Amino acid sequence: MLVVLTGGTGGAKLIEGLGHEIDPAQLTIICNTADDFVLHGLNISPDLDTIIYTLAGLSDPVQGWGIQGDTFTVLQQLGKLGDETWFKLGDKDIATHITRTRLLRAGLKLSDVTDRLREHLHIKARIFPMSNDGIETRVETPEGIISFQEYFVKRRWQPEVKKVFYAGVKNSRPAPDVLDAIGAAVGIIICPSNPVTSIGPILAVPGVRNALKQVTVPVIGVSPIIGESAISGPAHKLMAAQGMEPSALGVAKGYADFLDQFVIDSEDEALTSKLETLGIGVLATSIRMKSLADKMGLARQVLALVDK
Amino acid sequence: MLVVLTGGTGGAKLIEGLGHEIDPAQLTIICNTADDFVLHGLNISPDLDTIIYTLAGLSDPVQGWGIQGDTFTVLQQLGKLGDETWFKLGDKDIATHITRTRLLRAGLKLSDVTDRLREHLHIKARIFPMSNDGIETRVETPEGIISFQEYFVKRRWQPEVKKVFYAGVKNSRPAPDVLDAIGAAVGIIICPSNPVTSIGPILAVPGVRNALKQVTVPVIGVSPIIGESAISGPAHKLMAAQGMEPSALGVAKGYADFLDQFVIDSEDEALTSKLETLGIGVLATSIRMKSLADKMGLARQVLALVDK
Repeated sequence: MLVVLTGGTGGAKLIEGLGHEIDPAQLTIICNTADDFVLHGLNISPDLDTIIYTLAGLSDPVQGWGIQGDTFTVLQQLGKLGDETWFKLGDKDIATHITRTRLLRAGLKLSDVTDRLREHLHIKARIFPMSNDGIETRVETPEGIISFQEYFVKRRWQPEVKKVFYAGVKNSRPAPDVLDAIGAAVGIIICPSNPVTSIGPILAVPGVRNALKQVTVPVIGVSPIIGESAISGPAHKLMAAQGMEPSALGVAKGYADFLDQFVIDSEDEALTSKLETLGIGVLATSIRMKSLADKMGLARQVLALVDK
Repeated sequence: MLVVLTGGTGGAKLIEGLGHEIDPAQLTIICNTADDFVLHGLNISPDLDTIIYTLAGLSDPVQGWGIQGDTFTVLQQLGKLGDETWFKLGDKDIATHITRTRLLRAGLKLSDVTDRLREHLHIKARIFPMSNDGIETRVETPEGIISFQEYFVKRRWQPEVKKVFYAGVKNSRPAPDVLDAIGAAVGIIICPSNPVTSIGPILAVPGVRNALKQVTVPVIGVSPIIGESAISGPAHKLMAAQGMEPSALGVAKGYADFLDQFVIDSEDEALTSKLETLGIGVLATSIRMKSLADKMGLARQVLALVDK
């Protein structure tokens, strides 16, 4: 089993590539849930859903979220009934949230719900939420503390960020099998996901970081940053707010205690010696994933590092 | 204010007619909620919704339920995720249930939720659920006790019915303003709705029947039965199971303690003398409502009885 730590969009691209390069049944995905939130009374897990839709072949390749060809009839009607519409939920996507909400209220754990969705959508990879406990990424701005979704979607990551923290993480536990999966992995892949709001929360769940430090198999990361900007989203802004250097080097520093190899973009090749000083092997290549061929090509190179 | 007691389909037709004949702001609807149920984790109030959609001009005139031109994307996807699909919920309709469920869980009463939906859909008539308490029509069959929706929709009213009862009604209270509205009405209209599962539960809410008995204004009923069959649905079967004669006369007998006038179909004119023996005035006319003109015509005749 290959274990893959991921958030949503960026990680989903690499996972799509991995799913084409090896039997998806060999993949165990550990997914960020600190962006989860409740809207319209429905439990929404944006990163889990992006990964589920990607592995089910349903994802929208243009948007990077939601289901391809989805319609927005429910959301429009919710608007007419006085509800908020800033978070774009498609009709098929809403079916996922209705099902998740129903099962959670019936007493199932998020990991059980995720497994059931995975099964019904015929996904062979295993998908684990990082935790069944409620953990929420919160963003401190000059105007006050807001949720990640409010910062990211509603406010389009424009507010100045003073600090990011994961409410509830200290007393959380990893979801069942998460630590076992890491311990039994033949290789670990850290996706090119936001190190502050996607990978950061996973690492902050008590026990996860330590489990990663203890594995003897290769731990391979892929940078979500090229130059001083995130490939998509606000990773560089959030890293700066957390006192991290907003670069591939800054990402690697955050993972240095468990990372063996880091895949960076050719543009950042000059960082190689600094990364090697941290004890991290480097592969500089093209890491932008625009086409399926890009995703498969990068996945192939990552898999080669695992096998090396 | 005219007070109208109603269930779903049949009552909605007369209410549509009434809404065209007088200013809808003069109507206060008291609606059955004993068919309410939870499906997909969503609180569904079929009769309230039929009335709301009718008065909002959204209803589907062919089906008699749901919203005209609605799509079924969410339901299809729920099916793929392993959920039941025997109750046809359209996408716009689901927005209603999502909103209702969210507001009920936030602590609002069903009457407040109904009022909010009414307001957002620009409905001028007042719409009250008969009660904010959970009351459930249950159907006793040879195979056991099932919910009304299971009997009516899932099993298409085919099981033999031994008895019908309203679980929870004994300790229920009318929703706020229900008794006051009846007391202050200039006339009361009992819609051509199922006397066992639509009007029966309303009358069984403690205080309602007594309030109807005490009014001095005209109480006008419209028969849901022609000959020995319901105009639509299983009213005749359910009446027989309850020991009621399955005819317009049987319906009138059930309402005799408060009914002043009963509108029956011309086909049933022969019942006139028996009805008059009960102290009930009779109007025999065409009571089938297929077109809007039929609905308006019948409404006009009912309003004339109120004014007489």
